[in-house]
Amino acid sequence: MVKTRLEAFSDGVLAVIITIMVLELKVPHGSDWQALQPLLPVFLSYVLSFVYIGIYWNNHHHMLHTLKRVNGKIMWANLYLLFWLSLVPFVTGWMGENHFAALPTALYGVVLFMAALAYLVLQKCIILVDGGTESLLAKAVEHDRKGKVSQLLYAIAIPLAFWNQWLADGLYSLVAIIWLVPDRRIERILEE
Amino acid sequence: MVKTRLEAFSDGVLAVIITIMVLELKVPHGSDWQALQPLLPVFLSYVLSFVYIGIYWNNHHHMLHTLKRVNGKIMWANLYLLFWLSLVPFVTGWMGENHFAALPTALYGVVLFMAALAYLVLQKCIILVDGGTESLLAKAVEHDRKGKVSQLLYAIAIPLAFWNQWLADGLYSLVAIIWLVPDRRIERILEE
Amino acid sequence: MVKTRLEAFSDGVLAVIITIMVLELKVPHGSDWQALQPLLPVFLSYVLSFVYIGIYWNNHHHMLHTLKRVNGKIMWANLYLLFWLSLVPFVTGWMGENHFAALPTALYGVVLFMAALAYLVLQKCIILVDGGTESLLAKAVEHDRKGKVSQLLYAIAIPLAFWNQWLADGLYSLVAIIWLVPDRRIERILEE
Amino acid sequence: MVKTRLEAFSDGVLAVIITIMVLELKVPHGSDWQALQPLLPVFLSYVLSFVYIGIYWNNHHHMLHTLKRVNGKIMWANLYLLFWLSLVPFVTGWMGENHFAALPTALYGVVLFMAALAYLVLQKCIILVDGGTESLLAKAVEHDRKGKVSQLLYAIAIPLAFWNQWLADGLYSLVAIIWLVPDRRIERILEE
Repeated sequence: MVKTRLEAFSDGVLAVIITIMVLELKVPHGSDWQALQPLLPVFLSYVLSFVYIGIYWNNHHHMLHTLKRVNGKIMWANLYLLFWLSLVPFVTGWMGENHFAALPTALYGVVLFMAALAYLVLQKCIILVDGGTESLLAKAVEHDRKGKVSQLLYAIAIPLAFWNQWLADGLYSLVAIIWLVPDRRIERILEE
Repeated sequence: MVKTRLEAFSDGVLAVIITIMVLELKVPHGSDWQALQPLLPVFLSYVLSFVYIGIYWNNHHHMLHTLKRVNGKIMWANLYLLFWLSLVPFVTGWMGENHFAALPTALYGVVLFMAALAYLVLQKCIILVDGGTESLLAKAVEHDRKGKVSQLLYAIAIPLAFWNQWLADGLYSLVAIIWLVPDRRIERILEE
Repeated sequence: MVKTRLEAFSDGVLAVIITIMVLELKVPHGSDWQALQPLLPVFLSYVLSFVYIGIYWNNHHHMLHTLKRVNGKIMWANLYLLFWLSLVPFVTGWMGENHFAALPTALYGVVLFMAALAYLVLQKCIILVDGGTESLLAKAVEHDRKGKVSQLLYAIAIPLAFWNQWLADGLYSLVAIIWLVPDRRIERILEE
Repeated sequence: MVKTRLEAFSDGVLAVIITIMVLELKVPHGSDWQALQPLLPVFLSYVLSFVYIGIYWNNHHHMLHTLKRVNGKIMWANLYLLFWLSLVPFVTGWMGENHFAALPTALYGVVLFMAALAYLVLQKCIILVDGGTESLLAKAVEHDRKGKVSQLLYAIAIPLAFWNQWLADGLYSLVAIIWLVPDRRIERILEE
């Protein structure tokens, strides 16, 4: 029952995050194509962040599926993850309104990097509660190639943003594409 | 249990979408009828979009009722539907603030059209999981006259908006009225 | 299970409504008492509306407690109630920012009156599904003195606002106080 | 079942509160470090309030865990707590935008103090329903050192803000750190 409420609160926060991002798409005053044009980068950054929050919701959902007990550490690790994700609307808006300028693009990457780290911390806390390296989740994420590649690509993209921000944005999109496929490892292990 | 969380997240997103739309009804500075007047088109577009989101919630609710298992495809098809619905507050505000001008009215129709397509994709994913053409949902939506008529009316309304936007708005309202009756086909099949 | 989702969606919408109202309390630029002063009427109208949404959530909760089946009529009656309640943040902000001027105060009453009517419609739909005049809910709300008095007080307050808005605001507060006690009738009947 | 809905509504409100606070982090127009700098105090106050709302969610979660029945008093005590917490985004934004000036810092403390009082009221209502001083919760919070120390520190910090606001902010942070550890007393008593 305790787990139910952790999921309900996380779902609530993620639902609000994914929806208030659209408020950055400020309604323009004119009613022609020219009025829409400056919104294009804001829209593109919105799409990217929508996909990222969707990925986090999806994987969060899978990860908690194996969880049986909840303790204080898991609660705070979960809140720590939600904290970094709650900054996504801000960096999305900043990156979009500045047409993917160098610093906002780099900061976007920093928030993604920190959220990915927080996700790993939450994963470790859940594995510890569920029986350590012998737990289902531990086996499912043993090699975690996707996770390691993502961290590496973020680490490359952040400094890259100051040299060529389009390459950085390309790397963020690449990581999103890698993760669009949900974490089948957990599904597979559970079926066995 | 997995299905519960899909419903909870969708309910959360739809609840936020339907409620933040009211933020476009910006509090006017004056306190007389003149101050309220420019809000009338924004209010009318709010009513139309409120009904649309209500229809989607209603039908989403019915469609998932027959669902037993959730897989990655269903999750992403659901997020894809939520993405298009999340754009409804933006196009509602743009159409309202520009007194139903041609381009905003057409774009409103495009978002409705894309959301309707996304709904069909989600329906197909659910039917595939639940046993293909023999499933309850497949039988319930076999002919899907309402769905086809809606798509056709949107496709007519979008170019029509550039010629006479009131006719386009009339068609959007007509589709909403057609759908106001919930999808009894599923209820009927389930009762049998 | 169907009822669960109706409750979840309503809870979500009411939670967002009650919380986004605070966004009308716009952060002032100064940092002294003078900067806070113009916010006082906005704050007072926020308190009144918070209590009203709380009352609706409370009574909604009690009313749905007796419900067993959900049909399309109940779903739409529920959405119709949520529609009127979704306008509360707008009229609250308008009334607050105009220091309880006549027209905003009257419009606030109109929204309360329409929400109360919508609540009655929802009640009738639920009674029809649950067995008509013999149902638990029908017995619990047989005389419905509170409901009738509220409607009467709203009907008096709306025209009164154009003559003396403080009397109208006093009547709104009076209705809130009358309802602050939750609907024990349902609790009592259920216990029997 | 009644308790489920109380939790769902509270989770919804807390999820919206914790997320809309980030809207105070307004996207700056420039794209360099200078543009970010004025946001630093807003960000710091956001972090502090995020931690506070997280603490309340955590403890609320623990406190309701022992609850079996819900009555009208608990519902209103819960709404009263949510009311004070709903003011947190406002005082957070005001304190942040004014770089922790004296009055906003003091008002931030007043809201925290009132929320802590409301939490105590809710606790008393729950203890009364669950069997008075013999209940699990009553035993768990018998001495309540943390609660008393927090109230004392708030009471010191509020007047202190007018003399040196950094000391007041330090005390708020100290209380947050004290509470970061979840309320293990309840966990311990429950295990026995």
